[in-house]
Amino acid sequence: MKLYEQLADSLSSRIEQGFYQSGDKLPSIRNLSQQHGVSISTVQEAYRLIEERGLARPRPKSGYYVSTQRGLPPLPSTDQVLQKPLQVSQWSHVLHMFNRPDNDLITWLSVALPWLESTTLRPLQNTLSDLSRRVGLRGLAYDRLNGAEELRRQLARVAIDAGCQLTPDDIIITTGCQEALSITLRTIAGPGDIIAIESPGFFGALQAIEASGLKALEIPCHPEHGMSMEALELALEQWPVKAILTTPTFNNPAGHTLTDENKQRMLTLATQYDIPIIEDDIYGDLAYSYPRPRAIKSWDTEGRVIYCTSTSKTMAPGLRVGWVAPGRYLQQVMHMKYITSMSSTTLPQLAVAEFIAQGGYERHLRRVRAHYQHNRDRMQDWVSRYLPAGTRASNPQGGFVLWVELSQQIDANKLNERCQARGVNVAPGTLFTAGKKYRNFIRLNYAQPPTAEIEQAVQIVGEEVQMMMDQD
Amino acid sequence: MKLYEQLADSLSSRIEQGFYQSGDKLPSIRNLSQQHGVSISTVQEAYRLIEERGLARPRPKSGYYVSTQRGLPPLPSTDQVLQKPLQVSQWSHVLHMFNRPDNDLITWLSVALPWLESTTLRPLQNTLSDLSRRVGLRGLAYDRLNGAEELRRQLARVAIDAGCQLTPDDIIITTGCQEALSITLRTIAGPGDIIAIESPGFFGALQAIEASGLKALEIPCHPEHGMSMEALELALEQWPVKAILTTPTFNNPAGHTLTDENKQRMLTLATQYDIPIIEDDIYGDLAYSYPRPRAIKSWDTEGRVIYCTSTSKTMAPGLRVGWVAPGRYLQQVMHMKYITSMSSTTLPQLAVAEFIAQGGYERHLRRVRAHYQHNRDRMQDWVSRYLPAGTRASNPQGGFVLWVELSQQIDANKLNERCQARGVNVAPGTLFTAGKKYRNFIRLNYAQPPTAEIEQAVQIVGEEVQMMMDQD
Repeated sequence: MKLYEQLADSLSSRIEQGFYQSGDKLPSIRNLSQQHGVSISTVQEAYRLIEERGLARPRPKSGYYVSTQRGLPPLPSTDQVLQKPLQVSQWSHVLHMFNRPDNDLITWLSVALPWLESTTLRPLQNTLSDLSRRVGLRGLAYDRLNGAEELRRQLARVAIDAGCQLTPDDIIITTGCQEALSITLRTIAGPGDIIAIESPGFFGALQAIEASGLKALEIPCHPEHGMSMEALELALEQWPVKAILTTPTFNNPAGHTLTDENKQRMLTLATQYDIPIIEDDIYGDLAYSYPRPRAIKSWDTEGRVIYCTSTSKTMAPGLRVGWVAPGRYLQQVMHMKYITSMSSTTLPQLAVAEFIAQGGYERHLRRVRAHYQHNRDRMQDWVSRYLPAGTRASNPQGGFVLWVELSQQIDANKLNERCQARGVNVAPGTLFTAGKKYRNFIRLNYAQPPTAEIEQAVQIVGEEVQMMMDQD
Repeated sequence: MKLYEQLADSLSSRIEQGFYQSGDKLPSIRNLSQQHGVSISTVQEAYRLIEERGLARPRPKSGYYVSTQRGLPPLPSTDQVLQKPLQVSQWSHVLHMFNRPDNDLITWLSVALPWLESTTLRPLQNTLSDLSRRVGLRGLAYDRLNGAEELRRQLARVAIDAGCQLTPDDIIITTGCQEALSITLRTIAGPGDIIAIESPGFFGALQAIEASGLKALEIPCHPEHGMSMEALELALEQWPVKAILTTPTFNNPAGHTLTDENKQRMLTLATQYDIPIIEDDIYGDLAYSYPRPRAIKSWDTEGRVIYCTSTSKTMAPGLRVGWVAPGRYLQQVMHMKYITSMSSTTLPQLAVAEFIAQGGYERHLRRVRAHYQHNRDRMQDWVSRYLPAGTRASNPQGGFVLWVELSQQIDANKLNERCQARGVNVAPGTLFTAGKKYRNFIRLNYAQPPTAEIEQAVQIVGEEVQMMMDQD
């Protein structure tokens, strides 16, 4: 056996034993060469072999990482959606996630809270503190109804990354993305109107649809490529759809992203039926690769796309700084914003503006993108390892939530109750539909650093799933 | 002429000449005695005479103040309201007030912005700044859906002043009072439903009624005692009213306050017709005398009153910290809050909680109550002095807005255009109705210190009114 083969075997077995886990950075070529007293080229040969075996992958200018393709769970199956508008109701579950006890010992895999401990967020915290003194009375007064101008200027700059050409005047600041979605829905639709939406879909949007007396028409989605354009076209033919509500980039919960071609196709369909698209792009900036996917809004020449997003996932949700670019609906959405809550809180707007202007947001994004990608690999690995064979999981290319399909016999709400008794909480799939689907699905948050505690939480989920299967 | 008569004449003429203006503190007895070389009792005699002449009033433990009763304008007449539900629309005016240019030279008498320069607000600003560092990640995370617990605890304490017995769990924090009103309206009423509301009434509520597809049924009000209970009873008999929306204490814009007896009578009527009362108490804490008037909520034993208020007028609107105590509608309002904007911004909530807990709010209230009372006197005086004879004005016992009735021939919207050309802005009366009433009314804000600039602005309003009357 040659030197490089020995080295490759040694590294391979460490990976197999879990010493290096999925997504981990492997030792550098220089380090291995020194440790093992072999030449650089021997280490390079060893890595080439490990790569061939599918155990590691190189990342440019960074080194080798444990491959995730190895034990990657298969993708969830395409759902057979019942195409009929339905009422929504999962409120008690949502409330439970929000109003969790302050000092409990539960590991919350359910809530889509981003990673807030990152040191790259510190400048934002400092700015928040400094600004309060620096801006004086301005922090206490109402800001303009559409929000602080310096913030809108910065957001217009950020939107260029999504391919959007916006001016500050195209933008209205909102209290989080939820307010953007809520005022938009109420602007363009009234009781009884039908909104086409992805299935599964974000429960905040589903709840808003219900509370406004609207009906959700759920369109089936491909696990990687998102909403089926065929199904959408059929839906538009069959039902008087008032608007399409979509999260086409790193969908929550399913993780899929519509191809550029299909994003354009959706816009064409909307034009054909003369209806608006409400595009929720809240996870878009959290792409693992650069440049990030384009927003549908980027192809919109007639103001048909109402672009809703927020800093809640990319910075911090407690700031409640969201925004909407309502296109041709600007005046109506502005009015709805006024009657809903008037201006949004002043200080966080100014802090976010400064954070972006000084390059802090870009630095933070670079950091969390790598962090979330790494965590995804780890979480996928744990799902493969600890959940029973046959479990499927999404393969998101951005964001920080994993959509997991369990055995058909599992009721995820019951599973969640059992897990809670053992100190773990997951988001059951039924939250993400107006119908009665996704009973055997769960959503897991992988934003937090992958500690032993989280690994154990996934292990507990796996054990409970196995026990439910055994009892069945 | 006796010594005390001479002194009284001298002081009287100084008051008449405007050297001491309405609400000003007059020199102390000790000072006058020293200045004029007369005895304390001579000065006391002089003041007694001035008081008899109606030119000054004593305030306990403080001294003599220039009386405001002297030239007090007569109250506006009771309105003959057309009792029929109507659509609302004055949006462009509202938008104009909110989106005023940053650096313009206009004196804004229109916007109901409180006095933010008070040094008693400094601790709040400092807390905002310190907290951002002190609470660390908590400031970045979502707070509970109903708001930070420490804030709800403090607000429950504050509500005792209004006679309300609330627990922290009765309270939901909102993005300003506007969100409280907006989510409440959407919770209890749907398109086509009729809401009984004071006439004139707050435009934010009127706009919310319109945008939710509801109809405003305007109930006439007495200029001092508020909503006519006879008219309300008639309205409830004749129309299927879904809820009563009222600002019963220091009404905006009209300044009136419902008597305790009528507050209870309104509650009895609501009980009889089994409908909720939405009580907007945003100005209640700004009473010029202590204790402040009781809220209707304080008599509510069956959770029928939905109590909405905010720190926007009593502290600072830019914080957007409002709240609602929805009584029996707690769960529904909580759901509506969730779908509207999820949690509210975290940091301002914690800052307000600390400001109240440390006694800062009480100190601030004491300061601004005296400030606003003084300014009211001054503004009433200027209205008497600079606006044509026949002008009427409200006599609010709290808050900081004056409701002014001009000659019938004046169109306040045209007046406002003319004033704007001269650098002054007022709120035209038509903003405060869903109908076409109050064409000849304006609302003036007297929150800011009564500078020569503001005096001149009132003078300009008076000149323009006179010119319009002359041209007519």
